[in-house]
Amino acid sequence: MRSLIPTCLLLTVTNFVYAVWPEPNHYQKGNNVVWLSPTVRFTYHRGDLIVHGEGGSYSAALPQLGRFTEFLQPQWLLNGNYHQTSAESVDEILKKAIKRTRKHLLNTRFVPWKFHPRNESFEPPTLSQTEATLKEVVIRERESDVESLGYDYIHGDESYQIKISKKGKATISTSSPIGTLRALQTLPQLFYAHSSGGVYTPYSPVLIMDKPKWSYRGLNLDISRNPISPSDVKRTIDAMASVKLSRLHIHATDSQSWPLDIPSIPSLAAKGAYHPSLVWSAANLRRVQRYGLERGVSTFIEIDMPGHTGSIGHAFPNLTVAFGNDRWEKFAAEPPCGQIKLNDSAATDFLDTVMADILPRVSPFSRYFHTGGDEFNLESYLLEDSIRSKDPEVIKPLLQAIITRVHRKIMHAGLTPIVWEELVLDWNLTFPSPVSESQRVIVQTWRNSLAMKKVLEKGYRAIFGSGDVWYLDCGYGGFINPRHGSNAIKEPYLDWCSPTKNWRHVYMYNPLAGIPQELHSLLEGGETHMWAENVDPINMDPMIWPRAASAAEVLWSGPRVRDDIKGASYRLGEWRERAVIDLGIAASVVQMTYCLMREGSCEL
Amino acid sequence: MRSLIPTCLLLTVTNFVYAVWPEPNHYQKGNNVVWLSPTVRFTYHRGDLIVHGEGGSYSAALPQLGRFTEFLQPQWLLNGNYHQTSAESVDEILKKAIKRTRKHLLNTRFVPWKFHPRNESFEPPTLSQTEATLKEVVIRERESDVESLGYDYIHGDESYQIKISKKGKATISTSSPIGTLRALQTLPQLFYAHSSGGVYTPYSPVLIMDKPKWSYRGLNLDISRNPISPSDVKRTIDAMASVKLSRLHIHATDSQSWPLDIPSIPSLAAKGAYHPSLVWSAANLRRVQRYGLERGVSTFIEIDMPGHTGSIGHAFPNLTVAFGNDRWEKFAAEPPCGQIKLNDSAATDFLDTVMADILPRVSPFSRYFHTGGDEFNLESYLLEDSIRSKDPEVIKPLLQAIITRVHRKIMHAGLTPIVWEELVLDWNLTFPSPVSESQRVIVQTWRNSLAMKKVLEKGYRAIFGSGDVWYLDCGYGGFINPRHGSNAIKEPYLDWCSPTKNWRHVYMYNPLAGIPQELHSLLEGGETHMWAENVDPINMDPMIWPRAASAAEVLWSGPRVRDDIKGASYRLGEWRERAVIDLGIAASVVQMTYCLMREGSCEL
Repeated sequence: MRSLIPTCLLLTVTNFVYAVWPEPNHYQKGNNVVWLSPTVRFTYHRGDLIVHGEGGSYSAALPQLGRFTEFLQPQWLLNGNYHQTSAESVDEILKKAIKRTRKHLLNTRFVPWKFHPRNESFEPPTLSQTEATLKEVVIRERESDVESLGYDYIHGDESYQIKISKKGKATISTSSPIGTLRALQTLPQLFYAHSSGGVYTPYSPVLIMDKPKWSYRGLNLDISRNPISPSDVKRTIDAMASVKLSRLHIHATDSQSWPLDIPSIPSLAAKGAYHPSLVWSAANLRRVQRYGLERGVSTFIEIDMPGHTGSIGHAFPNLTVAFGNDRWEKFAAEPPCGQIKLNDSAATDFLDTVMADILPRVSPFSRYFHTGGDEFNLESYLLEDSIRSKDPEVIKPLLQAIITRVHRKIMHAGLTPIVWEELVLDWNLTFPSPVSESQRVIVQTWRNSLAMKKVLEKGYRAIFGSGDVWYLDCGYGGFINPRHGSNAIKEPYLDWCSPTKNWRHVYMYNPLAGIPQELHSLLEGGETHMWAENVDPINMDPMIWPRAASAAEVLWSGPRVRDDIKGASYRLGEWRERAVIDLGIAASVVQMTYCLMREGSCEL
Repeated sequence: MRSLIPTCLLLTVTNFVYAVWPEPNHYQKGNNVVWLSPTVRFTYHRGDLIVHGEGGSYSAALPQLGRFTEFLQPQWLLNGNYHQTSAESVDEILKKAIKRTRKHLLNTRFVPWKFHPRNESFEPPTLSQTEATLKEVVIRERESDVESLGYDYIHGDESYQIKISKKGKATISTSSPIGTLRALQTLPQLFYAHSSGGVYTPYSPVLIMDKPKWSYRGLNLDISRNPISPSDVKRTIDAMASVKLSRLHIHATDSQSWPLDIPSIPSLAAKGAYHPSLVWSAANLRRVQRYGLERGVSTFIEIDMPGHTGSIGHAFPNLTVAFGNDRWEKFAAEPPCGQIKLNDSAATDFLDTVMADILPRVSPFSRYFHTGGDEFNLESYLLEDSIRSKDPEVIKPLLQAIITRVHRKIMHAGLTPIVWEELVLDWNLTFPSPVSESQRVIVQTWRNSLAMKKVLEKGYRAIFGSGDVWYLDCGYGGFINPRHGSNAIKEPYLDWCSPTKNWRHVYMYNPLAGIPQELHSLLEGGETHMWAENVDPINMDPMIWPRAASAAEVLWSGPRVRDDIKGASYRLGEWRERAVIDLGIAASVVQMTYCLMREGSCEL
């Protein structure tokens, strides 16, 4: 069927594999092979200084800048300049990133046979290993005020440039540590394992000049509806980093369970988690946040309030209303119901204690703190003795007071609050004035683009991720059972946001549709949402991936058009294989093998 | 919140966990604890003979019946009475099943904390270990003509009875080896691991009297669209056996790839598989069929023809039409197109060789051979020189001739042919007369219940599994990309059988709806279908499970009603945890943890 060209005669390689997800702004490549030296060294220069060197044969002096501070124990319950106790120095973070990248490059097991017609010789001859070889990656970072960035380095300039010459000279040029980190996240995608050993790129000369459309490129992961462990979240961070997602929003507590340990209130998680073994200790949270920080993923938590707080009732029934009430449909959007009291000094004290405990612990690792505010149920307050009303006029000042109180603490801790859109659209709340622009509240929109437009028109910074396309839990059918004799759940038992969206739907979501140009600058970015009613560690990977990666390209490269889908199917398919093989992510299939192989059309 | 009763005072256990999936016909249980002795022994009596004993302290004589014949090499390319070379004796199969069950029982790690309100003491006091203990499982099988059953033992009487007395006396009573196997598949579901060590049932006294509604309880697994390995299929068989599914239909070949080695035509799979390492060797197939046979899962293959045969063209382009044609939408339902020639002696010879090779190899392990017959494309035959027509009147005699030829060989090999409904509904073909009733062709229906009714009205035996509910691949969005400028694929890119069906939809499918009572006896049973365009070994488990298990209860216990859903959510949830923990099956979530815990209503 196909001419059998002996492998050793193939000096250039059919340029069938495209690589790199998300797509760089500018991407030029040739079709020459460059092999990776097993002793490849990395040198990292900032301005004229060599900050760090990594690699087998590297022997130059390593002038450390004296900023490799050890990890510091967060200052528990301390008010003040929390960020001074930065978890790790940026240099230390970059040093680790270089080491990790080098290891990944040298140890990739990804042989891209799936992306070539079957039985075709696609690999370069191993004889050519003596030819062009990449022996050094030189990283040049233009001087920047790294010291002042601290933990906040993720918010620096993410642009980067990668050059690999025909002869194997590799240079990374950036203007900040986070730019360097992004380049290091791209680099391994240019290389493949050879089935006879060795690692090569078939793309030299390469020139990539890249920067993101949006800085907030997120994933929202719910660890409350079903138990998700720290190691599952770390695995998710690995996958996020590989597609340059930059924000992990952990929906840490909800009415179903309270896995988050608050050491000053030990019974809260001990009784509110699904099982004592499933509590996220302070150390767990710290390690996960640090793990994200080291990978360019700003990892922060949401404590949703005042709705979605029923699980407080396991330890403190007196602080909640409607806790344990079997008529959940009256008091909540889904079972179980239960909300924290709104007009109760004990409840306020409780929130104060939670905030005093958590804020100093999370602030060394991320700029954000999410206070929720969605699906707030009014009926519940008919059950609070000192309210006995569901009148919004009665409720609003109480709600405003509690949000103001909590947000003041968040800002005092140097953090930026995030809230769900309901607080501004349905309740028209106001928020404390920020000390700096970066602390101005961000509103997370979820219902549709009209809602987002309204949020932006009010002048708020916003995050997109519309429920009808970027909710990864949608379309799998309702999770509520029919009561005996009930007709409430009609066949075919669909959920509100059915049908299921695959990676193509996620990819075609245009967050800018219907949003006037002059409001675009208020968009920080967006995120997909993995609500966990139907997800736990066993099936979360194929639910999240490749769809969150599909969103990552929209967030990095901007809205897509239909004509991008075909090319994306190969590149995303390639990312998926790499994620499965090198990162151990159980991502769902992007396209069937026949289609990835480009033997013929899979288009219509 | 909850009264803290010291564990040691809890002498009876709250009877919250229900266990056993699929639901037995008759299931009576108490709430006494019986511990499993670590030296539990099993004795297996047929009539008055002890056939086998297994267990630590067992020391009685083991009169073997002399039928533990070793596995025999299948008689390659031999015509005749294939079944005489049975793969393994039934006694050997049961001996292994007893050993496996004992091991599973003693080694379960399933602590059912998820099925009790959080922080509740639900486990029996370990002190009680000295009380009722199960020391022996006595299996009594009424004498049956086992010798004549041979490999076909799966088709025997599946009814069984299990008794566990309050004091721990356990008895299994059956009238055939397959009944015994089914009882052994139920038994472990009554037992739990204790978090302090040991295994117990909280349900004594137990009485289960059980038998299936249908004998054909299947799963159709496509190993052609994406590569699925023998070990993935074995894992799937483990899960199938745990819910008493009895038939594994392997859709072994299709236009995308031909993974199935035919040793007399070595180039067929060598060139037609996606990769040489992905060929299913004769030994692979034999091991998988044997694995199924040993677990009560009759495992057989489909070689779909004459449609879905494009992959033959990789080795033999001259035997096919439309192979490699880029206008796939003209010549096939999905890419790629290509069909075997219908009026070509070389193609007929090819099929003869395939059949002569495969039939003796598969016949020791299963009663069935599936010859496909779906989505036969007529346009393709405009390209066959000696036909040059798409007129059904021209095509039909050619199609009839090839089916008759292949089916004669299948019957001669002692097998029962299965075909897709198109051959009788669209083509009105006839089939060779069977020698015995058990070899009469079975028609697999898939389009809808009206199609099934028509098949039954023609007097055919049938298998159900309607595409709109029991196709597990449905609702994940189309897998075809839009061509440049094409409007063929409209947003929201849904597939034909959208939306996604979760386990509740699968559970509520009533195959008898619209089928007149007098035709019911023609129904052999049904199966769910895992077409693999969007599935490979990485994401297949959560796609198949728990949905195929949901279907297993419909197939075992008969059609369900809405009021069954609530109870099912706990029992299926329990099966899922056990499958994850004890079998390593990455099944999707059945219900969120809060709901499984029965702390409050999850009903509407």
